[in-house]
Amino acid sequence: MYRIENDLIGDLQVPEDAYYGVQTQRAMDNFNITNEKLSNYPNFIKALAYVKWAAAKTNAELGVLDQNIANAIIEASKDVIAGTYDNQFPIDMIQGGAGTSTNMNINEVIANIALEKLGHKKGENQFCSPNDHVNLSQSTNDAYPTSIKLALIYYNEDLIGHLKQLASAFRTKAAQFAQVIKMGRTQLQDAVPMTLGQEFEAYAVSIENEIKRLDANSIQFLAINMGATAIGTGLNAVPGYATLCAKNLAEITNRAFVKAPNLIESTPDTSPYVFYSSALKGLAIKISKICNDLRLLSSGPRCGFNEINLPAMQPGSSIMPGKVNPVIPEVMNQVCFKVIGNDLTVSLAAEAGQLQLNVMEPVLMYSVVESVQLLVRGIDTLIDKCINGITANEAHCKAMVLNSIGIVTALNPYIGYKNSTKIAKEALETGASVYDLIIEKNILTKEALDDILNPENMLGVSE
Amino acid sequence: MYRIENDLIGDLQVPEDAYYGVQTQRAMDNFNITNEKLSNYPNFIKALAYVKWAAAKTNAELGVLDQNIANAIIEASKDVIAGTYDNQFPIDMIQGGAGTSTNMNINEVIANIALEKLGHKKGENQFCSPNDHVNLSQSTNDAYPTSIKLALIYYNEDLIGHLKQLASAFRTKAAQFAQVIKMGRTQLQDAVPMTLGQEFEAYAVSIENEIKRLDANSIQFLAINMGATAIGTGLNAVPGYATLCAKNLAEITNRAFVKAPNLIESTPDTSPYVFYSSALKGLAIKISKICNDLRLLSSGPRCGFNEINLPAMQPGSSIMPGKVNPVIPEVMNQVCFKVIGNDLTVSLAAEAGQLQLNVMEPVLMYSVVESVQLLVRGIDTLIDKCINGITANEAHCKAMVLNSIGIVTALNPYIGYKNSTKIAKEALETGASVYDLIIEKNILTKEALDDILNPENMLGVSE
Amino acid sequence: MYRIENDLIGDLQVPEDAYYGVQTQRAMDNFNITNEKLSNYPNFIKALAYVKWAAAKTNAELGVLDQNIANAIIEASKDVIAGTYDNQFPIDMIQGGAGTSTNMNINEVIANIALEKLGHKKGENQFCSPNDHVNLSQSTNDAYPTSIKLALIYYNEDLIGHLKQLASAFRTKAAQFAQVIKMGRTQLQDAVPMTLGQEFEAYAVSIENEIKRLDANSIQFLAINMGATAIGTGLNAVPGYATLCAKNLAEITNRAFVKAPNLIESTPDTSPYVFYSSALKGLAIKISKICNDLRLLSSGPRCGFNEINLPAMQPGSSIMPGKVNPVIPEVMNQVCFKVIGNDLTVSLAAEAGQLQLNVMEPVLMYSVVESVQLLVRGIDTLIDKCINGITANEAHCKAMVLNSIGIVTALNPYIGYKNSTKIAKEALETGASVYDLIIEKNILTKEALDDILNPENMLGVSE
Amino acid sequence: MYRIENDLIGDLQVPEDAYYGVQTQRAMDNFNITNEKLSNYPNFIKALAYVKWAAAKTNAELGVLDQNIANAIIEASKDVIAGTYDNQFPIDMIQGGAGTSTNMNINEVIANIALEKLGHKKGENQFCSPNDHVNLSQSTNDAYPTSIKLALIYYNEDLIGHLKQLASAFRTKAAQFAQVIKMGRTQLQDAVPMTLGQEFEAYAVSIENEIKRLDANSIQFLAINMGATAIGTGLNAVPGYATLCAKNLAEITNRAFVKAPNLIESTPDTSPYVFYSSALKGLAIKISKICNDLRLLSSGPRCGFNEINLPAMQPGSSIMPGKVNPVIPEVMNQVCFKVIGNDLTVSLAAEAGQLQLNVMEPVLMYSVVESVQLLVRGIDTLIDKCINGITANEAHCKAMVLNSIGIVTALNPYIGYKNSTKIAKEALETGASVYDLIIEKNILTKEALDDILNPENMLGVSE
Repeated sequence: MYRIENDLIGDLQVPEDAYYGVQTQRAMDNFNITNEKLSNYPNFIKALAYVKWAAAKTNAELGVLDQNIANAIIEASKDVIAGTYDNQFPIDMIQGGAGTSTNMNINEVIANIALEKLGHKKGENQFCSPNDHVNLSQSTNDAYPTSIKLALIYYNEDLIGHLKQLASAFRTKAAQFAQVIKMGRTQLQDAVPMTLGQEFEAYAVSIENEIKRLDANSIQFLAINMGATAIGTGLNAVPGYATLCAKNLAEITNRAFVKAPNLIESTPDTSPYVFYSSALKGLAIKISKICNDLRLLSSGPRCGFNEINLPAMQPGSSIMPGKVNPVIPEVMNQVCFKVIGNDLTVSLAAEAGQLQLNVMEPVLMYSVVESVQLLVRGIDTLIDKCINGITANEAHCKAMVLNSIGIVTALNPYIGYKNSTKIAKEALETGASVYDLIIEKNILTKEALDDILNPENMLGVSE
Repeated sequence: MYRIENDLIGDLQVPEDAYYGVQTQRAMDNFNITNEKLSNYPNFIKALAYVKWAAAKTNAELGVLDQNIANAIIEASKDVIAGTYDNQFPIDMIQGGAGTSTNMNINEVIANIALEKLGHKKGENQFCSPNDHVNLSQSTNDAYPTSIKLALIYYNEDLIGHLKQLASAFRTKAAQFAQVIKMGRTQLQDAVPMTLGQEFEAYAVSIENEIKRLDANSIQFLAINMGATAIGTGLNAVPGYATLCAKNLAEITNRAFVKAPNLIESTPDTSPYVFYSSALKGLAIKISKICNDLRLLSSGPRCGFNEINLPAMQPGSSIMPGKVNPVIPEVMNQVCFKVIGNDLTVSLAAEAGQLQLNVMEPVLMYSVVESVQLLVRGIDTLIDKCINGITANEAHCKAMVLNSIGIVTALNPYIGYKNSTKIAKEALETGASVYDLIIEKNILTKEALDDILNPENMLGVSE
Repeated sequence: MYRIENDLIGDLQVPEDAYYGVQTQRAMDNFNITNEKLSNYPNFIKALAYVKWAAAKTNAELGVLDQNIANAIIEASKDVIAGTYDNQFPIDMIQGGAGTSTNMNINEVIANIALEKLGHKKGENQFCSPNDHVNLSQSTNDAYPTSIKLALIYYNEDLIGHLKQLASAFRTKAAQFAQVIKMGRTQLQDAVPMTLGQEFEAYAVSIENEIKRLDANSIQFLAINMGATAIGTGLNAVPGYATLCAKNLAEITNRAFVKAPNLIESTPDTSPYVFYSSALKGLAIKISKICNDLRLLSSGPRCGFNEINLPAMQPGSSIMPGKVNPVIPEVMNQVCFKVIGNDLTVSLAAEAGQLQLNVMEPVLMYSVVESVQLLVRGIDTLIDKCINGITANEAHCKAMVLNSIGIVTALNPYIGYKNSTKIAKEALETGASVYDLIIEKNILTKEALDDILNPENMLGVSE
Repeated sequence: MYRIENDLIGDLQVPEDAYYGVQTQRAMDNFNITNEKLSNYPNFIKALAYVKWAAAKTNAELGVLDQNIANAIIEASKDVIAGTYDNQFPIDMIQGGAGTSTNMNINEVIANIALEKLGHKKGENQFCSPNDHVNLSQSTNDAYPTSIKLALIYYNEDLIGHLKQLASAFRTKAAQFAQVIKMGRTQLQDAVPMTLGQEFEAYAVSIENEIKRLDANSIQFLAINMGATAIGTGLNAVPGYATLCAKNLAEITNRAFVKAPNLIESTPDTSPYVFYSSALKGLAIKISKICNDLRLLSSGPRCGFNEINLPAMQPGSSIMPGKVNPVIPEVMNQVCFKVIGNDLTVSLAAEAGQLQLNVMEPVLMYSVVESVQLLVRGIDTLIDKCINGITANEAHCKAMVLNSIGIVTALNPYIGYKNSTKIAKEALETGASVYDLIIEKNILTKEALDDILNPENMLGVSE
């Protein structure tokens, strides 16, 4: 059962019970690219509805929209925000047209819900039109990027919640490993002693630093271009609309939105996505490095570093019995590579903006959200199935320190770099221990040496 | 209803009716990353089953596998190839463990199907074991990359089929536009005349060149490392296995597989994916450039180049009535940006290989396949919803040529570059036409000039 | 004439008059990679010397370095800062060893200058040693990244100075073009009117936003890890050293340096470079987009948009007389592509960090500095040889607006989107003007229409 | 002392003794971007001169160029090829104008040399003009990319020469290490035994495979577009010119050049650079992986894998005495990161082609050549200062194998995967050896076990 709707292109059948309309139907026909439908992105649908709510409220307050229609639009928006109509957004996340299809999808769904609330039937757009009422004072070119920004704020908040848990997981391990003395390594070569706790504490701090960077970069999403309409000149938006709409959106979403200082500049500008995506890339680089470390530290069990044990999650090999692999850091590395690849997609899409618009916004949005979702799922996995279960091989760590040459560094202040070098060289060539060589050569007394070469004395961090 | 299975990690419940087993179940629990399940990749499932078939055949022929069990494995493989068991591959496409989960998934499914064929129950692995029989003489580290290679051959064939259609669509237009004379442009500046047909023919040739490059790069997938087992030394594979297995796989798949010359080199080597992904990147660059051209040529309608019209697929704006946008090239550009981003992911994953294996193969495979699928869907869309419906604004194209300064180039052989430059400069500064200036200055006779400046005379391609 | 010096590897000849020593000599022999020598990077040499000055001052204040030697080191550092010894830094910018060669180069040069100030000869290291005195309480792993950070602060300040000039150049043009009415374009299709002044003002604002982002990201360079020594544990640095050294460096450089909160985290951390490089990438994306716009707007002269004229800098073609190309935006685009490529190099290098150090710092540093220098030279070129000389084709711009269909958008509030669409469609199909159609159909009075369709009335930006 | 020359832009001073002319002078003024001048790229200068030679020869043979002038041009080209005039190419490698400046630089230099040979003075262009004679039947848009292709053929040949040496260096070590038994590792976990010789032989094979890929991709440089002139239509080139010019170029350079099948397609096409750059990226990925391996295998000396020793090239630390770092692989990794970054630059530049030309060719060329040169210098360094001096710690390698759990894999064919798993698990948990456990449990006789677990028996590669 269909109803017939009409647009610039002509007539088209729309399923009778659909809340979406002709332009959504066209987009469904035009774009079959990713198999990822808008309906799977409730954060984005919610954001679109909030924007429509804010616009309707503003239009009514400025007297350009009948209060009854505005009320119906607002109530319809609330229903959408509640998730009731998620299945009415059947269009592909990657689309041509700079998001016009997405904007018309929300316009059509809200118009039809509002029509029913007003006692009319779906499609009786003379009483509430997707373009003339729901989209009033707007263009895709302001409503769509503003919705993206709100959606990304939600996604970022979700990501940061998971990162805090990750930092906390590392910190818990740091406390647990506070007494495990081990060799620090630079350039994969033995350096000087540290504790495993210090190493894990550094991971915690590192993640916390990335949280700060994500926050700093997500702040850019708060400057929006509602009121820009088509190209930033605000054609068809009445005076005062831009500022009031930002204020209203801030109020109803409880996020500190403000009007972008220059709407013509802001409309084609994709820098906020570029910088947020760069921050995701930065996070991916950091997490990938940490996962690389975990795989190095757990290498072995007998022919590697073997300092820590990752929990065994599954048999490691279809041929090698008993083999256990670091599968969780491995999958996380792969997530990070996807995020870094997505950041390139974002860069390419951003550079492709032309004149008064960047038509590549859909792939920008899609790539950033994909990165966030992969990271969130990866981080959950990393915490639960890896970090929380890590154990240390304390005795082996300690033995490696005592057997090392690197501890000779602590002698510099006493015998100088040149003499220490000679000792180190001899130890390396003969296989002897640094300790024994110093004693043998009567360079320092045993007491002095015990004190200097005691690894515990090498761990205090300079402040 | 569950059955209990057991592995290195311990006991685990597996759904009673599942053909997969304990290790698949573990992978389902461990990896929830992409929401993309192996079950959605029938080409890959088919490839995995062909590999198991080839291995069983080879093992039986070499006398290391009981012929009855081999037969059951082969029949089970055929059922899997037929698509009957696609829903038994519920694991995530991105996984740690270098594909061990995927390899065990196919091992388990085939073992259980084979068991039923042999009159046993699922899980009675003493009669047919995932590891000892289905995986016999194999490791994930040979079976998994070999399966990826076969799967990518299928994907490549699919892509090339669509590219041929794209080239053909361009060529059809080239014929249709053979008489449309237009200005060629270099550096976005008016250059010298050409036909629109020549322009579209060049697109056809360009796509055909990419087809050749994809083919050349996909040939690398034919060198496989079956018989390598864990690290290429072939431990647990009997003499002759590697060569025979490649021969058998070639025979049953009708693809020209050969044993890689050095199995230790081949096992961690991801170059074939890297080069094929680079070829996809090259294709994406080419298609993106063409889509950029289509958008430039159709810019306007009144304030742009306006040489061609793309078919109107949907209203172009929620605010600007009558606007029609080049939405199909736009979505194709975005597909191309995803492909280029995926190629970076592939590079990162390839560089992360270590020692005797590259554990990042799953994300390599996933990214390449995603790129192919996006391209295939995008190309279909581009052909049907854009190229086929393009029309030319012939009169406008011709008028621009006649009004241009660039035609002065044809005068070089007659009056020299310096004199031509003077004419061009004057035309530019005064707005006069090149033709009128030459006549006015008595540089050439009208007859000579008519002949030289006739655009038709400027179109013949030098051979 | 040579002197013989000695290190862990053995004896080596060093030119007698060289202020550098054995380890610099070894680095010269080991690394011949880029042809780019440290001597060409005075900002970096200056930064290295400031770090040595701060360390010597701190060591003396904490009583671990003889005040006479400290004074000599400080005076030597000042000479280096003054640029007197730039030619004593002959080593390659890309090097293995995580910068050890660079750190030893500055240690050796300062030691030898200090020796001469103390009345000794070069190489008499018993009186002032590169390791035991100049490098006292330091490691390459703190001194080198701290120097990089200071150097990048200098480079960033230079870049921002040039960007301010660029923004200013755009703003000057914005004022000049304030009355030039033109068509705005979205998706390369005619949209609604704007002024050329608004377009250039948006470029100015856009650059100013990037300046803010660069500043925000460069702040991260102020957290330094002096006192970390080898791996952040501060081995061989006395209590209080880290904080005091940061304070001293802040004082002598007049930049607000502080000790990084966690030295173990900070030592291998390359995030500040990653984020600053991402900001350069963001800037490059922005500038590339603007240059693309300039090339579009100046396309023609007769078969393109032809809204603006870029100054003619050189003949555009070896064959096409009179052709003038947008060579300056073109070269700037290419600079931007290098910067984006360099950002990938930075990402790769950052991800390659392992355990307590990132050994890839030299290429990180080199790539970021190359990007800054290319941008600085490109921006200079862009301002002087392009932006400042741009002129507008005012009449042509105005004519295109009046002839456009997009102005129909202004009718939405009066006749609705559906009716406006019909008018637009008819105009498109018949070639008629929107104005004539409205009059012909008696939809609005001529007076009302004149007012609504007056482009000047479409330009006011909503606030 | 200057002479005055004149072009489209006006008069300009050129140094009296300069062989270049007005357009080169303008380019020097316009482009100060990289500090890298064409004069530093003799391969490219040589290629440009060969192209001018081929064009002059072809023009004379086809009767459109006076034989005396042609002879003078050819003799002048030979002088340039000999390197005599390298200092006459003072322009920046990155330039706007799609290489017009470079093409005019060679046109001017050859014209002036030819003038002198003909008994005239520099600048007397009426006797031999850069445009009308040297550039006859050409445009920058065919002469420039053809020169790039020839230059890249030279660069590729140089690179391949060095890669052959690298493969040979690995193979020499493979022979030397043929008897060193060591643990193979997958996923950084102990796997099964192999020899160090097998590992190095795989590196040799790997490099040889990359040589084949570079060759396969460089073949694309042989299809040239001479005769295309401005946009591929061959305007101003007489019939037969294109084919004959390719033939002539092939003859004089002894490289198998052919006319590209479609000159309109070929002219803006940058795919050959894209694919060659991708091959460089593939090589960089491979070499970087190998360098990562070398650093892992030499990690230690006491707390790492410690299987091999890299030659000590310099002291490894300014604070840690006796530390030796893998500085050569480290610098090579950094080279690889530059190459991968450059490949992105190439991709960006290629995607930016528009309509009948890709104006970004200079940065394409520059980036590819930079990558080749960095690789060549890096590879030289890697061979001489690292590979050739590598030694093995044979006893340690063997001891690790004997102590490993992974050798249990060899028991699969005898006791099955499940039973082997139990043994492995017990060994892992108790620290016992696999060997002892098998004996203790009476699973196999000592004789059988000695045979199966003998690492020598695990090394034969399956064929």
